Amino acid sequence: MNQKPYPRMTREELMAERELIRAKYEELKAQGLNLNMARGKPGKEQLDMVSDIMDVLRSDSDFVCDGIDARNYGNLEGLPAARKLFAEILGTQPENVFVGGSASLQLMYDTIAKAYTHGLLHSEKPWARLEKVKWLCPAPGYDRHFSISQSFGMEMITVPMTPAGPDMDLVERLIQDPEVKGMWCVPKYSNPDGIVYSDETLRRIASMKPAAPDFLLMWDNAYCVHEFRGEYRPFPDILSECEKYGNADMVFEFASTSKITFPGAGLSVFACSQANMAYMKKLLNAQIISYDKVNQLRHVRYLKDKAGVLALMKKHAGILGPKFQCVLDALEREIAPLGIAAWEKPVGGYFVSVNTMPGIAMATWQLCKEAGLTLTKAGATFPYGKDPRDSNMRIAPSLPPIEQLEKAMEIYCVSLRLAAVEHCLGMTAD
Amino acid sequence: MNQKPYPRMTREELMAERELIRAKYEELKAQGLNLNMARGKPGKEQLDMVSDIMDVLRSDSDFVCDGIDARNYGNLEGLPAARKLFAEILGTQPENVFVGGSASLQLMYDTIAKAYTHGLLHSEKPWARLEKVKWLCPAPGYDRHFSISQSFGMEMITVPMTPAGPDMDLVERLIQDPEVKGMWCVPKYSNPDGIVYSDETLRRIASMKPAAPDFLLMWDNAYCVHEFRGEYRPFPDILSECEKYGNADMVFEFASTSKITFPGAGLSVFACSQANMAYMKKLLNAQIISYDKVNQLRHVRYLKDKAGVLALMKKHAGILGPKFQCVLDALEREIAPLGIAAWEKPVGGYFVSVNTMPGIAMATWQLCKEAGLTLTKAGATFPYGKDPRDSNMRIAPSLPPIEQLEKAMEIYCVSLRLAAVEHCLGMTAD
Repeated sequence: MNQKPYPRMTREELMAERELIRAKYEELKAQGLNLNMARGKPGKEQLDMVSDIMDVLRSDSDFVCDGIDARNYGNLEGLPAARKLFAEILGTQPENVFVGGSASLQLMYDTIAKAYTHGLLHSEKPWARLEKVKWLCPAPGYDRHFSISQSFGMEMITVPMTPAGPDMDLVERLIQDPEVKGMWCVPKYSNPDGIVYSDETLRRIASMKPAAPDFLLMWDNAYCVHEFRGEYRPFPDILSECEKYGNADMVFEFASTSKITFPGAGLSVFACSQANMAYMKKLLNAQIISYDKVNQLRHVRYLKDKAGVLALMKKHAGILGPKFQCVLDALEREIAPLGIAAWEKPVGGYFVSVNTMPGIAMATWQLCKEAGLTLTKAGATFPYGKDPRDSNMRIAPSLPPIEQLEKAMEIYCVSLRLAAVEHCLGMTAD
Repeated sequence: MNQKPYPRMTREELMAERELIRAKYEELKAQGLNLNMARGKPGKEQLDMVSDIMDVLRSDSDFVCDGIDARNYGNLEGLPAARKLFAEILGTQPENVFVGGSASLQLMYDTIAKAYTHGLLHSEKPWARLEKVKWLCPAPGYDRHFSISQSFGMEMITVPMTPAGPDMDLVERLIQDPEVKGMWCVPKYSNPDGIVYSDETLRRIASMKPAAPDFLLMWDNAYCVHEFRGEYRPFPDILSECEKYGNADMVFEFASTSKITFPGAGLSVFACSQANMAYMKKLLNAQIISYDKVNQLRHVRYLKDKAGVLALMKKHAGILGPKFQCVLDALEREIAPLGIAAWEKPVGGYFVSVNTMPGIAMATWQLCKEAGLTLTKAGATFPYGKDPRDSNMRIAPSLPPIEQLEKAMEIYCVSLRLAAVEHCLGMTAD
């Protein structure tokens, strides 16, 4: 293998490299593989590991908790024991926690939907009656966040991510516009970069003074206990941080057990100020009698408390750690010497974020696809699916078994090299 | 006991009756009871009966169905086997069925919320941009339906219920107004009357020609298999009925297992045309990755098919039948001779609907409350909580054990008699 960085190769060297890599690519393509690193889905080994959660509810009396029969209607805001469990995990009080169904995405969507149909606590009118709603989207970010914004017709404004979190100089400037109504954040092990917001970023976010009185900080703490390497890293409670600066009602925090127990059948929560809770409960009372408290109770009995959750996350780390290592090793070995991409080295979350040389992410994605490897579509980590530099790619190592992952990374690295060399040769359109 | 109807009593007879009943009421009140017939909640005996549903998912391989691992993300529209089960129950095709979470109310709310934020398939614009949305509310009806309408600021128009369903002469006139955007219906064992829409009503509903192109027929088939006496009564599939008259996209049907398995932890579904399904799936795709498929699979394995459901409903009927009989017997014995109220005698559903002489429902409710019996608030069965005749009361016999039910009905009948006699004496304000 030629270890010379592509940018320093002569045209002849690049031509030779291209021939070599193209042959390797065709060979892989001929294997007719079908591999997937597109989504942050836990693998079967993880699912099997937690399936004993089904054993905790046995006899009729098991369904009663704090005097509440979890099987019947009632308790809109969730089982008290489930609220307590999440309060401990998030570092807040049980009365600030609302436990929902199996999907935190739905709670996020519904919060924004209610801003549109009814307005938030401090809204002058429902957002549906506004000419325009602008929204801050730190990017690269989570495509499903951007899809919610797009579905509601928001004007999304890209805010570059830094190693410490969103570019706060820019954020502080943008929120002076009263049409800017909110911001997406994944503060711990951000999707996809895997970075953790710094204390300074956190302070600047919590102390923002947006022009909009109903500015909505969407704090998706999806990976709050999701270290796959090293020890659990405590993280400040955003609710009390915001309160400290007179912004108690600005933030809704979200979390779930999607990557603790089952992705499709776990628990989701939002946490917010008491004033927001009272306001939202009044609206939610028209929408649902109560979420699935049997599943809430099942989780309480299985996870027990924060210590129980952290112990379980160590077991997940035992499965996930080697998968991330496999991805990072392949990048280090195959790509690092070539000067064609850079990437974060996260210790938590569900993704590796690769930034290729500008202009080749989509070509790489396409080459992978044609060789049987599905990746998150290039561009998806940016608003409207458009990465202005055509550079960011999200790799999700969790689903494939490790032997498939090695093959997938082989395809990925070869595709990236091929796209890069052809780009350097001026063979692809920017 | 004086069996002479109140309306035929002399003032002296009424005074004597009042003294007698007031004493009886005070005696009951002094017992400091705490009874509840407010909501259609299944009782503990019913919940215990179905709790073996927790035993059907055991080993890791149990979670896979039709090649899908129910524990992981995916299949927005629900597990194919769950769609098939509900299609059989509702008499439609699996591809018309969307299986959601534990609450059909949420699916109803979300359908209307999407009409407001995005518009429906045939909407000219989102309803949030309209000056006014009017909505037909057959009444007495389900208070939570009316709460949804009220939450969105609809102008609710009361349509009287007849023994054959909503007054269709009136409906056909009202839908000529393009601002009338939809109608609530509980077609089988209506809430609260327990009546079943006639074939003629059904035909007239399915063949409506509303002026609004996006008129939304909300068909809440909550009690589709919920006979508590006698045999299962087949009921036409509203989707194909509507299609027959060129109205395929007019209707969304809803159902759930809330009164088949667990009220708080069952399955909910909507059924609609293929065009509506494609439209809604596109919108729902921004809201949620997938609902709880583990619970869907649990239900499929437990209920198996429509025959399995009907067999289970027979067992529920064995518990519910005697409770309804207890209510009807008490009314027949204590109230019928007095000429102060009339009621339906349903064979399915979850309620007994009592129509008192005008002007005493709220007073009766208040007397019950003070004597320790909680009932659905008088008025709640009408839009805005206002029964123009102050007459309709909804009794929910399902939750209390039968011995409590007898005591509750004692309080109810005495309260009703007291309110009636005082009303006849001109002692209460209308």
